Amino acid sequence: MILKNANYIDVINGKVVTSVDIEIEDGKIVNIGQNLNGNDYIDCSSKLIVPAFTNAHTHMGMSMMRNYSDDLELQDWLEQKIWPFEAKLTKEDMYWGSKLSAIESVKNGVCAVVDMYDNVDATAKVCNEVGIKGILGKGLLDIDGRGADRLEAFKQNYNECNSEKTKVILAPHAIYTCSTEFLKECLMLSREYGNVLHIHVSETKREFDDCVNLHGMTPVEYLETIGYLDTKIIAAHCVYLTDKEIDMIADKEFYPVYNPVSNLKLASGFTPVKKILDAKINLGIGTDSSSSNNSLSVLKEIQVGAIVNKAINKSSSSVQANEILKLATINGSKITGFNNGAVEVGKEADLTFFDLNSINFTPKNDLIGAVCYSASSEDIRDVMIDGKFVMKDRVVLTADEEQIKYEVNRLTDRILRS
Amino acid sequence: MILKNANYIDVINGKVVTSVDIEIEDGKIVNIGQNLNGNDYIDCSSKLIVPAFTNAHTHMGMSMMRNYSDDLELQDWLEQKIWPFEAKLTKEDMYWGSKLSAIESVKNGVCAVVDMYDNVDATAKVCNEVGIKGILGKGLLDIDGRGADRLEAFKQNYNECNSEKTKVILAPHAIYTCSTEFLKECLMLSREYGNVLHIHVSETKREFDDCVNLHGMTPVEYLETIGYLDTKIIAAHCVYLTDKEIDMIADKEFYPVYNPVSNLKLASGFTPVKKILDAKINLGIGTDSSSSNNSLSVLKEIQVGAIVNKAINKSSSSVQANEILKLATINGSKITGFNNGAVEVGKEADLTFFDLNSINFTPKNDLIGAVCYSASSEDIRDVMIDGKFVMKDRVVLTADEEQIKYEVNRLTDRILRS
Repeated sequence: MILKNANYIDVINGKVVTSVDIEIEDGKIVNIGQNLNGNDYIDCSSKLIVPAFTNAHTHMGMSMMRNYSDDLELQDWLEQKIWPFEAKLTKEDMYWGSKLSAIESVKNGVCAVVDMYDNVDATAKVCNEVGIKGILGKGLLDIDGRGADRLEAFKQNYNECNSEKTKVILAPHAIYTCSTEFLKECLMLSREYGNVLHIHVSETKREFDDCVNLHGMTPVEYLETIGYLDTKIIAAHCVYLTDKEIDMIADKEFYPVYNPVSNLKLASGFTPVKKILDAKINLGIGTDSSSSNNSLSVLKEIQVGAIVNKAINKSSSSVQANEILKLATINGSKITGFNNGAVEVGKEADLTFFDLNSINFTPKNDLIGAVCYSASSEDIRDVMIDGKFVMKDRVVLTADEEQIKYEVNRLTDRILRS
Repeated sequence: MILKNANYIDVINGKVVTSVDIEIEDGKIVNIGQNLNGNDYIDCSSKLIVPAFTNAHTHMGMSMMRNYSDDLELQDWLEQKIWPFEAKLTKEDMYWGSKLSAIESVKNGVCAVVDMYDNVDATAKVCNEVGIKGILGKGLLDIDGRGADRLEAFKQNYNECNSEKTKVILAPHAIYTCSTEFLKECLMLSREYGNVLHIHVSETKREFDDCVNLHGMTPVEYLETIGYLDTKIIAAHCVYLTDKEIDMIADKEFYPVYNPVSNLKLASGFTPVKKILDAKINLGIGTDSSSSNNSLSVLKEIQVGAIVNKAINKSSSSVQANEILKLATINGSKITGFNNGAVEVGKEADLTFFDLNSINFTPKNDLIGAVCYSASSEDIRDVMIDGKFVMKDRVVLTADEEQIKYEVNRLTDRILRS
């Protein structure tokens, strides 16, 4: 397939390339040049091709709690609303909830997610059905004394949830919900499987302070003592990362993930994005769940992340458009290990097609600026994953959107009436 | 016309009303009840009706500079990019640029704007053509010694720019671009016409500090000394409003306008929204221009404003969904003086219709939360102003979107090549 007259963002070099042909074969970009020939042609002159996004931290199974309870203090939100609702979720709920998240992801230009929730089997199934890629963390904790059971269940499920597009990993929830011993067990098992770990780190000031009070050290210092800095680890939030901790992780396989909308909405705080980027750390970006966001739009994360750091750093030249776009593309790929995140020969053809004729792209000034500051999800017309369109003109081709919404509304009603 | 089976947000009481009929006659809401009869019926069961938004501070004529230069420090941005570009704008440019802004406003659910720019005649024309309402401030300054000419031109133009939907007002740009004498002349002339004034106030720390250094008092204290607190005044930004200034304006007709996206992107700072609301001041919300935003989405302002104040105030229950929605609706109406901003008998029928079947509204939990946290502009399917649809299913009915985009691209090219 030849994408004719294509315009694309070269995120690695921060520039826009116009009017070239892109050849795709067996799901990969095999050639970029002029006047390429092939069997299929798609005219792309009215589109801007951007590497499809990686949502590097989310909880796909939580979509039934979207707009369920906002404007509460964090502990009230969790204890009075989220946990009681979650206790009622069945396997069927998690399947349809995750499927809603999968199509919402596609409609927001996402090709890959790093997930953390209880239902890796359902999430793996929907990823394969919808055609998105997933690093699927089995959420684990042991404060309720059931840690060993969960690890056992994880081992049982492990093989059936892995596929070409989905990798199942261990996701110990956080240092305040997992004992030191349990965290070590997770690390050992993760090493057996040769896998990355996914965990929440320093999301709130309370978490940070509690760690200092309990362990006499900061969260990353504590993680170092239990071996978590000697493995590949995807660390969601990192809002309260100290300068010393940034130094500690700079040469490690410790991948922080920035969640601007959720961190603002839950009043968690402001991740030190500029310091992390200045230290050359591979920062990713994520939405967190649609119950704390309340959408799964990585584009919104890019746009909010781009502007809020300027205000925090008191400099409108701070954290520039292409820097933040990298978080969602090439940096995300380094986190997941998928060979995508850039329009380059050899990469998997995971691409979004923005409408260059939309109002948000009029006039056609800086197109990287347009994606980061003016575009809306409506401008993402098509999404291609592994060289195949999973969305065309805003219609998801790999799932029945109406059925999914129907099921999610029906099942949510059941929970709310119970 | 009867809007059958309507669901709407009652912004004044912060609640959702479901399954009622709304009768519209001569552009106004004349009845809300059950089983209403009329000549025309529109089934609204799959829509959520929200009062159309007021964009209480924008510069419609600047859309050609959308995505033109981002990530620069404010002074560099103005001096190296914006002012040289603006110097080349012709009347034709301003007409088409403003028209692009008018249809962009409609596509973002906006029925009324408070504008400030040079081209009130073009802006008045496009407002009337597209069917939106405008309080159109003629941007005025005298640091270049041409203040008197501008006031004279304003008087000449005054009558032809006023219409049922457009009111022309004086908009002295700011205290740092207008002399004390000129500000007083603007106030006098404004009183002659019986009009409100529009001005930028305390947008940046530099503006605040310069005022203290030059006048020995803060901006609002300075404005008080020249009579600006004894008139109705729309004050854009107010980022550096002090506690004392908030007290000073609390019982005045001083209407601050919050511009969250622009204030973050230009690193201006964080408007003290909670303090302003706690003082029962009628705060509005605006986008500023599409060259500093870079869109005119009041929905985005609502969503960014809602979350950023929680983080700043370190409380996720701070500045709640309906509070921020009020800024864009009923508060905006108090600023413009148009009789809209609420779904109530007697109000002008200025309404947006959100798609309740969209993913962002699935499942159907709290619908006010959905508008403020998960909805996207794509969910705004229809917009009605004065009882007439100006947009249906995302197509603007009152203007030719393709022609406008063509002209804006063509004219921008001319400027960039000159």
